[in-house]
Amino acid sequence: MTSRRGPRGAGSDTRADILEAARSEFAAKGYDATSVRGVARAAGVDPALVHHYFAGKAGLFADVVGIPEDPSTLMAEVLDGPEGEVGEQLARTFFRVWDSPEGRVRFQGIARSAMGHDGAARMIQEFVAGEIFGRVAVTLAGRRGRAAEEVRVPAGLAAGQMVGLALLRYVIELPELVDADVDELVDLVAPTLQRYLVGE
Amino acid sequence: MTSRRGPRGAGSDTRADILEAARSEFAAKGYDATSVRGVARAAGVDPALVHHYFAGKAGLFADVVGIPEDPSTLMAEVLDGPEGEVGEQLARTFFRVWDSPEGRVRFQGIARSAMGHDGAARMIQEFVAGEIFGRVAVTLAGRRGRAAEEVRVPAGLAAGQMVGLALLRYVIELPELVDADVDELVDLVAPTLQRYLVGE
Repeated sequence: MTSRRGPRGAGSDTRADILEAARSEFAAKGYDATSVRGVARAAGVDPALVHHYFAGKAGLFADVVGIPEDPSTLMAEVLDGPEGEVGEQLARTFFRVWDSPEGRVRFQGIARSAMGHDGAARMIQEFVAGEIFGRVAVTLAGRRGRAAEEVRVPAGLAAGQMVGLALLRYVIELPELVDADVDELVDLVAPTLQRYLVGE
Repeated sequence: MTSRRGPRGAGSDTRADILEAARSEFAAKGYDATSVRGVARAAGVDPALVHHYFAGKAGLFADVVGIPEDPSTLMAEVLDGPEGEVGEQLARTFFRVWDSPEGRVRFQGIARSAMGHDGAARMIQEFVAGEIFGRVAVTLAGRRGRAAEEVRVPAGLAAGQMVGLALLRYVIELPELVDADVDELVDLVAPTLQRYLVGE
C-alpha cells in the first residue's frame, strides 16, 4: 500500500523499511507494547526518521492496516465539535473512512485478519479501544470530571456497535444494511454512540 | 454435536443423516432457500421425520450451528413479555445462550466460519436477520400497525450491536468487554436494542 504522507524518491526505501519493521512489531507485540523507538531500532534507523515519515505510532499503525487518514487527526476533529454532536460526527467520520469501494475492501481484509490470527486481533483491539473509541470516551469523561475507568465499558459497546455494523454491511453483507444509505444509518446509530460516549 | 431433542437409539442414524443433509443444504443454498422438504429429500427420508427430530427449519439450523436452544422458542418468550422490556429480555437471552465457556467456543466457531466462506456468511446473516432480530422487529411493528419495511434497517443495527459486542467479548477479547459482567452489559445495551426494535 502507498501513503500520501512523507516525501518520495530518495527516502522511499527507508520509508518501506520502517513500514515493514512496524508491521512485524505490531503483529508480534500488539499495539500497546509497540513503540516508535522499537520500530526504529528494528528498521535500523533513527526514531526521528520514523516521525519524519509517519504521524507517530497511530499514523504508523494506520498505514500498516491501510487506514487512509491519520486517526488522531480524525478523532481530534470529532472532539473539537459540539459535545451534543459527538455521536453523529463519529458515525460520519466512520463512514467517510470505510464506506467506499476501497474502504470496504480494506475493512474486509482487516476483519479477516483479526479473526484469523491472535496477534492481529490483539493489535486491532488495542488500537480501536485505545486510539478511537477509548480516546473519545476518556477525553469526554475528563471534561466532565468523570473517571476514565467509568467509561471503558460503554466505549467498548460503542466500538462493538460500529464494528458489528461494518461487519454486517461490508463483510457478511446483510441486505438491509447494504441497501441502507449512509444518512439513514447515521441517524439511527448516532444516538447510540452519543449515549455510550457522552451519556444521556 | 449432539442434541437434547428427539428420541435416541434406533433413530439416531436417521437423525444424523438429516443433520448432515441439512448442513449441506444450508451451506449450498443459504438459510432462506433451504426447506424442510428439500432437506428431507436430500436425506432420503419423509419430511414428517425431519419435524419429528427437529423443531422445524429454525431448530434444524440451530442444531447445525450448535445453538443449544430453539431460537423460535427463545424469541417467542421475548415477544410474550412486556413491550417495555424487549431490549432487556433480548439482551439477557443473548447472554444466556452465548455467555458460557461452551457458548463462547460455539460463537468463535460460527464467527470464523462466517468470515471464511460466503455460504456460511449468507446462511448466518439470513438466519440472524430473519429468525432473530428481524422476527422481533417485524412482530413488534405489526402490533403497532407499522410496516415491516420500516423496521428492517433498525433491526439490522440491533443485530450489528449484538454481533459486534459478542465479537469483541468472545473472539477479539477486548479487555473492557471481557471483564464487564453480564448485568452491566445488559443495562448498557438494553436501551439501544429497545430504541432500535420498539422505538423511543
